[in-house]
Amino acid sequence: MKTSADGRSDAGQPRNRERERADLGEGRFRPSERASALAAPYHGAVIDLSDRHFLSTLDFSLEEVDHLVRRALDLKARAREDACPRLLEGRVGALVFFNPSVRTRVSCESAMTRLGGSAIPITPGKDTWNFEVGEGVVMDGNTQEHVRELAGVLSRMCHFIGVRKSELITVGSARAEASADYAELARDPFLHALAEHGDVPVVNLESNRFHPLQGLADMATIRERLGEPAGRKYVLTWSWHPKSLPVATPHSQLLAAADLGMDVTVLRPDGWELEPEVMGAARERARSLGGEVTETADAEAAYEGAHVVCAKAWGSLDYYGRFEQEAAEKEGLRPDWIVDEARMEKTDDAFFMHCLPVRRNIVVTDGVLDSDRSAVIDEAENRLWTAAALFAALAGK
Amino acid sequence: MKTSADGRSDAGQPRNRERERADLGEGRFRPSERASALAAPYHGAVIDLSDRHFLSTLDFSLEEVDHLVRRALDLKARAREDACPRLLEGRVGALVFFNPSVRTRVSCESAMTRLGGSAIPITPGKDTWNFEVGEGVVMDGNTQEHVRELAGVLSRMCHFIGVRKSELITVGSARAEASADYAELARDPFLHALAEHGDVPVVNLESNRFHPLQGLADMATIRERLGEPAGRKYVLTWSWHPKSLPVATPHSQLLAAADLGMDVTVLRPDGWELEPEVMGAARERARSLGGEVTETADAEAAYEGAHVVCAKAWGSLDYYGRFEQEAAEKEGLRPDWIVDEARMEKTDDAFFMHCLPVRRNIVVTDGVLDSDRSAVIDEAENRLWTAAALFAALAGK
Amino acid sequence: MKTSADGRSDAGQPRNRERERADLGEGRFRPSERASALAAPYHGAVIDLSDRHFLSTLDFSLEEVDHLVRRALDLKARAREDACPRLLEGRVGALVFFNPSVRTRVSCESAMTRLGGSAIPITPGKDTWNFEVGEGVVMDGNTQEHVRELAGVLSRMCHFIGVRKSELITVGSARAEASADYAELARDPFLHALAEHGDVPVVNLESNRFHPLQGLADMATIRERLGEPAGRKYVLTWSWHPKSLPVATPHSQLLAAADLGMDVTVLRPDGWELEPEVMGAARERARSLGGEVTETADAEAAYEGAHVVCAKAWGSLDYYGRFEQEAAEKEGLRPDWIVDEARMEKTDDAFFMHCLPVRRNIVVTDGVLDSDRSAVIDEAENRLWTAAALFAALAGK
Repeated sequence: MKTSADGRSDAGQPRNRERERADLGEGRFRPSERASALAAPYHGAVIDLSDRHFLSTLDFSLEEVDHLVRRALDLKARAREDACPRLLEGRVGALVFFNPSVRTRVSCESAMTRLGGSAIPITPGKDTWNFEVGEGVVMDGNTQEHVRELAGVLSRMCHFIGVRKSELITVGSARAEASADYAELARDPFLHALAEHGDVPVVNLESNRFHPLQGLADMATIRERLGEPAGRKYVLTWSWHPKSLPVATPHSQLLAAADLGMDVTVLRPDGWELEPEVMGAARERARSLGGEVTETADAEAAYEGAHVVCAKAWGSLDYYGRFEQEAAEKEGLRPDWIVDEARMEKTDDAFFMHCLPVRRNIVVTDGVLDSDRSAVIDEAENRLWTAAALFAALAGK
Repeated sequence: MKTSADGRSDAGQPRNRERERADLGEGRFRPSERASALAAPYHGAVIDLSDRHFLSTLDFSLEEVDHLVRRALDLKARAREDACPRLLEGRVGALVFFNPSVRTRVSCESAMTRLGGSAIPITPGKDTWNFEVGEGVVMDGNTQEHVRELAGVLSRMCHFIGVRKSELITVGSARAEASADYAELARDPFLHALAEHGDVPVVNLESNRFHPLQGLADMATIRERLGEPAGRKYVLTWSWHPKSLPVATPHSQLLAAADLGMDVTVLRPDGWELEPEVMGAARERARSLGGEVTETADAEAAYEGAHVVCAKAWGSLDYYGRFEQEAAEKEGLRPDWIVDEARMEKTDDAFFMHCLPVRRNIVVTDGVLDSDRSAVIDEAENRLWTAAALFAALAGK
Repeated sequence: MKTSADGRSDAGQPRNRERERADLGEGRFRPSERASALAAPYHGAVIDLSDRHFLSTLDFSLEEVDHLVRRALDLKARAREDACPRLLEGRVGALVFFNPSVRTRVSCESAMTRLGGSAIPITPGKDTWNFEVGEGVVMDGNTQEHVRELAGVLSRMCHFIGVRKSELITVGSARAEASADYAELARDPFLHALAEHGDVPVVNLESNRFHPLQGLADMATIRERLGEPAGRKYVLTWSWHPKSLPVATPHSQLLAAADLGMDVTVLRPDGWELEPEVMGAARERARSLGGEVTETADAEAAYEGAHVVCAKAWGSLDYYGRFEQEAAEKEGLRPDWIVDEARMEKTDDAFFMHCLPVRRNIVVTDGVLDSDRSAVIDEAENRLWTAAALFAALAGK
């Protein structure tokens, strides 16, 4: 798919971001207007999102993202009354998983089914199915199929293509000490090639840079709990973790809070900064709604007055893929980066978020996770309804 | 899920069993009443089984189990007329398989589909997805997710959770000579934790101790062939097998015959007794319907006058998981434990049952298996309809 | 399944072929009549194909194959108008994959879903699930289940059984230098045993000898582009490839062109002839429609005047499974066997076909593959609609 419904290019994330900035620059979503728009009740499918790629929430305007979130909460409410509309009967989504997945696969499959459609999960084997992305390559090596053909074929057999491809997870599973250059990985060449050559919407189920379905679910969860989140304080706190995890999820979580116009604080040790360009995009979108994005290594200041605490472990961009080196660097950080009851007490009655799976008593204490403050199960459920809203929207429903 | 519809605890198998005993003690299902109740025609969904766990047939009263079996045969008849009701449209079941499965997966997926719903099979990888069951654990080791979160998440995304987790099969597949203490395994900690923390019905697709869907299918098969099985003779015969197999299936088969009020004989070599507590529960339920449960190592006496011969290989509880030791012990038993034509001649025109897969000319001869006496394919088909009946019942349909 | 609706034996491919020859001998489909019949518009489901096996297109008469192809194009047209009929609601197909598959699995699953049914993919594990095919075997070895039981069980749980089992691919994946005798493999014992013992239609998703769903898709693609293909020139050209690939696909592609009454040229180096018996069957069917089948190693002559060029790599029957020996033999052939622009210029404006996955700039140049001459994506899409037409037909719809 090369163009969106309105003729603008949707294929590459960078181009989309530029478009987004242009939109913001035009002032279409000025803070004051926006805040009231966000508070307005959901008023049905007035925004056409059909045949668009969904590689990052940045591919969509703030208004469009908000529409999806409200639509998701509407579907959730209708399902509670056993009145889930069968909008996707006869529709099929391909879900390509290069990395294992539980929440993403189950939520996406269940979402399709709830709306009357179905999903086909595809898990390429390590040895049997390698894809070529390069142009003009003489394919006499290990790659057996070009992404051009894969995109073309799946576009004809299915109504959209979801794909999860996170190199850091692949490398981690192989237990190889590999040097993975983040700047290189963040280009997500496979995902963008699939989007360029696909004739149906491509949905990012987690790439090296973004996990936008997690972002939507987090937005729905925050809206569900806070009503109007604009101006409230959101803390995304780094966690110590025995492994080095990707930055895709915290990037999309950061953007989720920004897209709600919140006052976002990224709490992380020095050396574990998120990608500057993503921080910049989040700041721009937050500001357009009257919010702000800051970062700090000072936990005291961060927790103070927070309305939402979202914990997530991620790897240092400087050591991306060099697990042993990073492990040595971060060993001393372990005791100080857990979310516990004492820290939650400092907040303004904040609730706790985590994308799951979570390591108990490492990332967060049992006391917090098993309390009423924890929204993690709601957050997981919202993966289902935001996926459903997205799939319906991409089908023009 | 912590309570059943009537407010009684359903979470743990031991508690359920106690409840069951209490029911029996109350005399709600006295033999004479029961026998006539079992013979009565199926009269629709008058028994509410919605939102109950199904960890063992012992979780259900005799009346409830009977209801499921009759419901299954009713659905089977309706499907023959191409009139299978679409009771589960929009419903989704998660099927978590820690061990490989053909019959169970296909029967459960097909059952959901026949009724208009769908199933999502999940197969946790060995290295990628280990679950923590312990309470208060600092999860800095190999476990990545606590069963509390798994149960909560799947409960929100799906309408029920099926799970197969049999440690003996896992150990066997790893070809490791492991000491697996049966008493420890029989607690089925993962299954019970999932049931405790799940908010939707948990269905046991085979645990270390029980395989209740096989039990239901066997009940349906016996009822199909015998009409009223109460008082007829059922023989569960041990088989020699090159591997050491779990006791879950023979336990549930034993209970199946007991729950039909049959005269049950467990034929096995000394040293291959089934779990005494399960034998006791079976005896209690059989007696309440006028039946009996006995065990013997005397094949002549066992086959004499039998109406049903069900063969199954299982491992000795004394050597559970110590495959080589057991193999040495049982080598001499091989010639005497096959079901052959000569033995079937001693019966009262018995039919032959086996849960499949079956090793031909090891467990049973071709002559028996390919004869009209064999009910194994009917028994496999009944896996489908009993699963369908159960899933519908758990959904209150 | 032992007999077709009309009482003739359908179980074994050889018997079917004999039947087919008998049909041809009877002159039921004489060339002149046939050509006009093929040109006639699709006129609905007047041919009953219910409950037939589909192991090869040779199992079906020319008229029946033509019916399926026209039905597929009709379904495709209806789906374009969002009017795909839900013919298979409540129907379930088992898809057993011994070898990895993308196109076949996705096309079959999507086909079932489009028509309202569903598919259950089954992937037997290497160590966990070996099937016995032999008769009278004492199963104390590595085989755990006899195909008789597998066939019986899946027949009761599903409405048809698809199976992919290609030993050459299995051996290739194991990277073992194994001697695989083609004559032995071509008997496809597992597939034929499944058909013999199955009570529902068995569909060949690629065996050692045939890949008939690819054949149907190719027929649909040719008909789509040429209208009436009888008498037009079709070239099936061998390709150099770093691996040794099976002959199943080129066999079915050859038959596809023959069944359209085309003038078929098989272009291959000496030593890479296709199976003589398949060549003979193709020749017989082509001639009955006024076409012809020839073979040559002369590329100049082959491309001259062609209307269709279909490229495919396949292994030499003399070296089947002895990859290193074959690699040495064929190394010198690499430069001369690629499909490029210069060769396509020699044709009569031919379009290009390939079953995919294709190695770019090895089998075909980017220039050809990315041009309007390429039909490979249409061909892949037609996998979906021909599968849908077949599944509907086997269900009597």
